[in-house]
Amino acid sequence: MSSVSAHDITSVFIALALLIATARALGELVRHFHQPAVLGEILAGVLLGPTILGRFAPELQAAIFPAQGSAAVILSGISTLAVTMFLLVAGMEVDFYAAVHQGTATVRISAWGMLVPFTLGLASATLFPTLLMETPSPVFSVFFATALSISALPVVAKILKDINLIKTDLGAIIISAATIDDLCGWMLFAVVLGLVGNYSGTTTAGLPIIATIEITLAFVAVMLTAGRWSINRIMPFMQAHTSWPAGVLGFALAGALACAAFTEYIGIHAIFGAFIFGVAFGDTRHLRERTRATLDQFISFIFAPIFFATIGLRVDFISNFSIVPVLLVLAIAMIGKVGGCYAAGVFSGLSKRESLAIGFAENSRGAMEIILGLLALHAGIIDEKLFVALVIMALVTSAMAGFAMEKVLNRSKPLNFIDLLSAKGFLQNLAAKDTKDAIAQLSAAAAATGGLDEKEIFGKAWERENLVPTGLPGRVAIPHARIKGLQKPVIALGRSYAGVDFNASDGHPALLVFLILTPEEDPRAQLEIIAGIARTFDKQGRAETVARANGFTEILAALKVDE
Amino acid sequence: MSSVSAHDITSVFIALALLIATARALGELVRHFHQPAVLGEILAGVLLGPTILGRFAPELQAAIFPAQGSAAVILSGISTLAVTMFLLVAGMEVDFYAAVHQGTATVRISAWGMLVPFTLGLASATLFPTLLMETPSPVFSVFFATALSISALPVVAKILKDINLIKTDLGAIIISAATIDDLCGWMLFAVVLGLVGNYSGTTTAGLPIIATIEITLAFVAVMLTAGRWSINRIMPFMQAHTSWPAGVLGFALAGALACAAFTEYIGIHAIFGAFIFGVAFGDTRHLRERTRATLDQFISFIFAPIFFATIGLRVDFISNFSIVPVLLVLAIAMIGKVGGCYAAGVFSGLSKRESLAIGFAENSRGAMEIILGLLALHAGIIDEKLFVALVIMALVTSAMAGFAMEKVLNRSKPLNFIDLLSAKGFLQNLAAKDTKDAIAQLSAAAAATGGLDEKEIFGKAWERENLVPTGLPGRVAIPHARIKGLQKPVIALGRSYAGVDFNASDGHPALLVFLILTPEEDPRAQLEIIAGIARTFDKQGRAETVARANGFTEILAALKVDE
Repeated sequence: MSSVSAHDITSVFIALALLIATARALGELVRHFHQPAVLGEILAGVLLGPTILGRFAPELQAAIFPAQGSAAVILSGISTLAVTMFLLVAGMEVDFYAAVHQGTATVRISAWGMLVPFTLGLASATLFPTLLMETPSPVFSVFFATALSISALPVVAKILKDINLIKTDLGAIIISAATIDDLCGWMLFAVVLGLVGNYSGTTTAGLPIIATIEITLAFVAVMLTAGRWSINRIMPFMQAHTSWPAGVLGFALAGALACAAFTEYIGIHAIFGAFIFGVAFGDTRHLRERTRATLDQFISFIFAPIFFATIGLRVDFISNFSIVPVLLVLAIAMIGKVGGCYAAGVFSGLSKRESLAIGFAENSRGAMEIILGLLALHAGIIDEKLFVALVIMALVTSAMAGFAMEKVLNRSKPLNFIDLLSAKGFLQNLAAKDTKDAIAQLSAAAAATGGLDEKEIFGKAWERENLVPTGLPGRVAIPHARIKGLQKPVIALGRSYAGVDFNASDGHPALLVFLILTPEEDPRAQLEIIAGIARTFDKQGRAETVARANGFTEILAALKVDE
Repeated sequence: MSSVSAHDITSVFIALALLIATARALGELVRHFHQPAVLGEILAGVLLGPTILGRFAPELQAAIFPAQGSAAVILSGISTLAVTMFLLVAGMEVDFYAAVHQGTATVRISAWGMLVPFTLGLASATLFPTLLMETPSPVFSVFFATALSISALPVVAKILKDINLIKTDLGAIIISAATIDDLCGWMLFAVVLGLVGNYSGTTTAGLPIIATIEITLAFVAVMLTAGRWSINRIMPFMQAHTSWPAGVLGFALAGALACAAFTEYIGIHAIFGAFIFGVAFGDTRHLRERTRATLDQFISFIFAPIFFATIGLRVDFISNFSIVPVLLVLAIAMIGKVGGCYAAGVFSGLSKRESLAIGFAENSRGAMEIILGLLALHAGIIDEKLFVALVIMALVTSAMAGFAMEKVLNRSKPLNFIDLLSAKGFLQNLAAKDTKDAIAQLSAAAAATGGLDEKEIFGKAWERENLVPTGLPGRVAIPHARIKGLQKPVIALGRSYAGVDFNASDGHPALLVFLILTPEEDPRAQLEIIAGIARTFDKQGRAETVARANGFTEILAALKVDE
């Protein structure tokens, strides 16, 4: 604290507060358009950096984010710490040991999925280097080939979860192939960094390149065998004999930082060590879900946004935007990855649709590509124009992956009933004398949300109610009807203080009544909505908790946030 | 990242890994002696700093923790960020609104508990300044008086929880008085810092002192009224419309950092702003337990140890140890605080014992005193000798508080059955053909742990078992006996794969059999142990989970760590 002035602290804290708040706000914004949060986080940096704020208020921008001095050094250090922690969590998601036990199809898909874009990348960087960069550096072509060949495991995993594919055979193949490509990509990149460090003489240890590569491979081999074995033995000891979760959290962070320091020392980047430690650490069956969640939430929701937002602070995305490299990178990356995976899939006996879906999944480059690009930029391997092209390629391939897979496999995200609720269709105080009255009031509310026919709604819902009562155990009722010509599902929600008797099997009157209207042509919608409501209120006391909330916003919050 | 070299990153990461690991290790060590974790964390810094490592290996010490350069600046920035986050969590523990609604006894205890040590401190610092400091600075006496008058709320709360006093009337008085003294102490200290900044001209804003104080008071008033009101409205919105818990976590950190930057800017320290934000934020009923736990765990177990360990890096605790200020500070602090609270308690009609217990509780200065001292040291208000004296006073008063309260109120921590388990008294595979056989085998194991009489144990336990069977619902059994002359309770634990029938009311055989032996003279011990076991296995499936663990360490881990 002694060496840092009050002015520097003020500056660093304002910068961090702005980065966190803006990244979060834009992260939420892009989420509404079903785009990955990392896009919003990078946009936050673009907004606060030279691209926007620096263009219109350069002095303000320089005052908030100084380029020199202690505040800049601290921010830079925190950003490095943040990305290192992010890689710890990314590593923890990798199930290396499951991936290597997959069959030949997986091996072929991961191999072709890397080799084809790698070869295409190497060829184009060697043949037309100046189309990509003005003055190509010596290891540029190897880096470029590597950058095209990786896959972003976290993006792939998230998409598979979203469309309920993760526990299928196809899902297992996709995840395992992505795991292998992710790991191999990092290994290759570590080698590239070793080459660069060696050329430019910036490594701390000053080792010859062969030694760096040998030590790197030895480090990975040791961590994934003896390291993993040790962690598996240390964890129960930590949980039995130290305060929980303090011991385990401390162990995870100290271990990741020590490995990070080691890899940084031998001349590849710190994040690589944290990533490999994360792979070994995340594998232990002794890691509890709560500890994993604490690490994951704090790092993914605080550290990661800080890091990704600082990227936008360093680079002007407008003046470094150049259409030729952007289109070229995107084309080579997509043709190579989608093509390679597709060919491998078809050759392995999978259907064309499945193979294409695999191709689009592995095609997403996500945050990994951006981190890799940034390191390459700092190491002088690429220039800012190519960096911008890589970032755009990463964002585009990630954003299109989910959409493309849904189309190709004819699957889609299940409807979430919470997204269908609206303030207009909410009755804060459903004072109904009986079931019929409750349905009538909710029909009026539902009709008001979108110009529907109140009478038709009531008629169909009441008719349905008379067939079988729709009260669920747990103080919830779900009267419903299919409406011809309805464009999209509508839900009206009534909260009743006294409860309305919907003849639930547990005999309790319902505190929350959901009137569910779905298009007659889409039987799936009704099923998904009802399943979602049933799942949500499966836990005893849940409906009471939700019903205690005041007003629509609090009800929504209570529904979303489960303890 | 651009301005920081690979060497600096290596250095920072090694330093952080060492600080986290050592602080955790020593924190666990002191915990075994029932001392607060902060003692171990400070000892970690003492070990790694100039006091020990620097004395024996000065070059190594300087290489790991450089005093100059980018690595030092980054470490210093991270340490400031860490203490600021710690104050956010500390503020979240403060229930200001409950405290101000307490009766006159609380007001009197908090007032006298501050005024007496404040007056004593002011008098001694004015009358014998040179006994405390070689060259007393202008605001020194006001600071000294303030430092003696604070109470450490977190320490007080933890002790009350430990001895089950927190929900009693006495507990409410103690907590509320500590809350008020904690808050007032910070306010006073903020004023002192304002004074210093003003004298030395180090504040960023360069405001006159009256303006600083006015703005500080206005800031506190606004945050605790309008700020609190706004947070209460923003929180449901964040939970309803942002991804959870990302939105809430981001809001908490961005808010705390913004307030911290503001207070740092007006010339009092950043931590003050984070603390006041924490008070307003922690009060909202919309904050979920999980979110609170994620913030609390990551900050208390990672950031706080980093900060407290870095204290030891800055100060040589041996060469700055001087017996006169140490004893003097300790004596004035204790006489003032214990005496003031005791008098106020007796005057308010509480018993002498209760009043004395209140005195010892409020007497604990904990981490707050250390942080306050460090800021004063950096601001040039005190020298290193007085700082060391304050740290020792803080640790001694905190360490003695729990012990003294237990004695004065004749209460003690309830026994925890997990602490009584041992590898010797553990049967990994209890292959018993019936209840009698199981008790016989466990009696032999229990006897082996401490030279007890196997026959006597078996006889008494089997006799007891025949009166009423000891099987509990949930696959656990607790045969037990009181043994004459036993020094302390002994538990033998057997894990059975097939289960042993102990006639539990749910009809299931027991997978875990605890044989509980307690001294005949201590009926409380048996009760507490049985209650602890019953509580632990209250949750369905818990015994199955624990029984699945392999070996004693894993069993212990599974018992300690509940999801």
